[in-house]
Amino acid sequence: MKILITNDDGVTADGILCLARFLSKEHEVTVVAPETEQSAVGHAITIRFPLWLRKVDIKEPFEIYSVSGTPADCVKIGIDVVLNEKPDLVISGINRGNNLGTDVIYSGTVSGALEGAIAGIPSIAISSYDFKNPMYETAARFILKFLKEFDVNSIPRFSALNINVPSIPYEKLRGWKLTKQSKRMYEDYFEKRVDPSGSDYYWMKGNIVENDPDPKADYKVLKENFVSVTPISLFMTNEKYLSKLEEMYSENKIVW
Amino acid sequence: MKILITNDDGVTADGILCLARFLSKEHEVTVVAPETEQSAVGHAITIRFPLWLRKVDIKEPFEIYSVSGTPADCVKIGIDVVLNEKPDLVISGINRGNNLGTDVIYSGTVSGALEGAIAGIPSIAISSYDFKNPMYETAARFILKFLKEFDVNSIPRFSALNINVPSIPYEKLRGWKLTKQSKRMYEDYFEKRVDPSGSDYYWMKGNIVENDPDPKADYKVLKENFVSVTPISLFMTNEKYLSKLEEMYSENKIVW
Repeated sequence: MKILITNDDGVTADGILCLARFLSKEHEVTVVAPETEQSAVGHAITIRFPLWLRKVDIKEPFEIYSVSGTPADCVKIGIDVVLNEKPDLVISGINRGNNLGTDVIYSGTVSGALEGAIAGIPSIAISSYDFKNPMYETAARFILKFLKEFDVNSIPRFSALNINVPSIPYEKLRGWKLTKQSKRMYEDYFEKRVDPSGSDYYWMKGNIVENDPDPKADYKVLKENFVSVTPISLFMTNEKYLSKLEEMYSENKIVW
Repeated sequence: MKILITNDDGVTADGILCLARFLSKEHEVTVVAPETEQSAVGHAITIRFPLWLRKVDIKEPFEIYSVSGTPADCVKIGIDVVLNEKPDLVISGINRGNNLGTDVIYSGTVSGALEGAIAGIPSIAISSYDFKNPMYETAARFILKFLKEFDVNSIPRFSALNINVPSIPYEKLRGWKLTKQSKRMYEDYFEKRVDPSGSDYYWMKGNIVENDPDPKADYKVLKENFVSVTPISLFMTNEKYLSKLEEMYSENKIVW
């Protein structure tokens, strides 16, 4: 397959290079990634400024380009300018740290995959669970095997797979499970400090809350040494609540 | 109601000031917004740097604070540090330009509302349709009336309302309609230029594609002079595709 790879940790991050090296053993790989780290940028795009695109002179069995923008920018310019055609697959990652529960909406890694989905290309986001101790080779070996057994062309337009891989040696992986984006979230608070000029500033801190009753919650299978595979769609309409509202507010009431 | 207001166009944008002035006639309003424009930041949060928070000395019947971060940052620090309690409502806007279809995942305005939803507060994103000719007063007068007739406490946890208001005089509004996030999207391409130092750079351009067959598509009601009200959830699992995958990949196959 022709695979376009991006990430949010930046073009020189260990995760993306490990992914590209493994995938290039069996696929035709091109890396187009942000020149600087873009973690937690969400689905940002660069609309007020232009983008600079640069071929990176690194000796690898694939081409690497850096972009002065976000993961979503990289996928857009990667398709239109670098490849000048649609690849067979977009993979975003391997992210340093997991993207589970509410992380999904903050994640630059996931946004790279969703941008591929908008362009009509099967797309996957992949993350290694532990920020402090990521194990990229486990995730890279997993995805190479996964691509042999999973039909990526079954992924619908405007949808993508969000994959999280435990930070354990590859041999200890028990397989993969289909999961849902969970209610895993952070309870945030701020720690106040004073800068050398006397102004207050604040560090965000957060406690992880994992209490989703759903047995298919994404974070649960990781604790059992399975890879979580969650199909996500960029359409966020709350259909159930919409139906309830349609009962509450009749057509007559809302037309003035 | 106690209302926390944020936006992505920045603390001095016309849209947020217009919104705060109208809402402060009937509600207790506090503005906590980014010190610089943050359009299309997606649901970015600031995790590698601390945040600076500053009270802005503007004579208004409400307090204004600026934050060196994103809309999501503003809601987090607004609740924990500025208010030190949960408000009754979070409103993000009034955005300059609409947030329809795939815009929803790029939108800093929407991310401000979703951050309120994560914190368990009824939350609304509001945008004025036309970027070149926004009509903030129409949107501000609309929301003031809407809050009298809509039960914001019906909004479920982790959900929010995404509201788009036509850029027409208030008197011409025909009412509001419940809608869905549509498949409205952009076909992007890049225009290449050369900078004074001889390097290529690229401007992103895009043609809007509006061909969603769904009669409830968000953009359609705006063309008929209705306000679109779309309930959105931050959970993006594609349930239908998940069911299909569960049939395709049995438990036996995916456990190694």
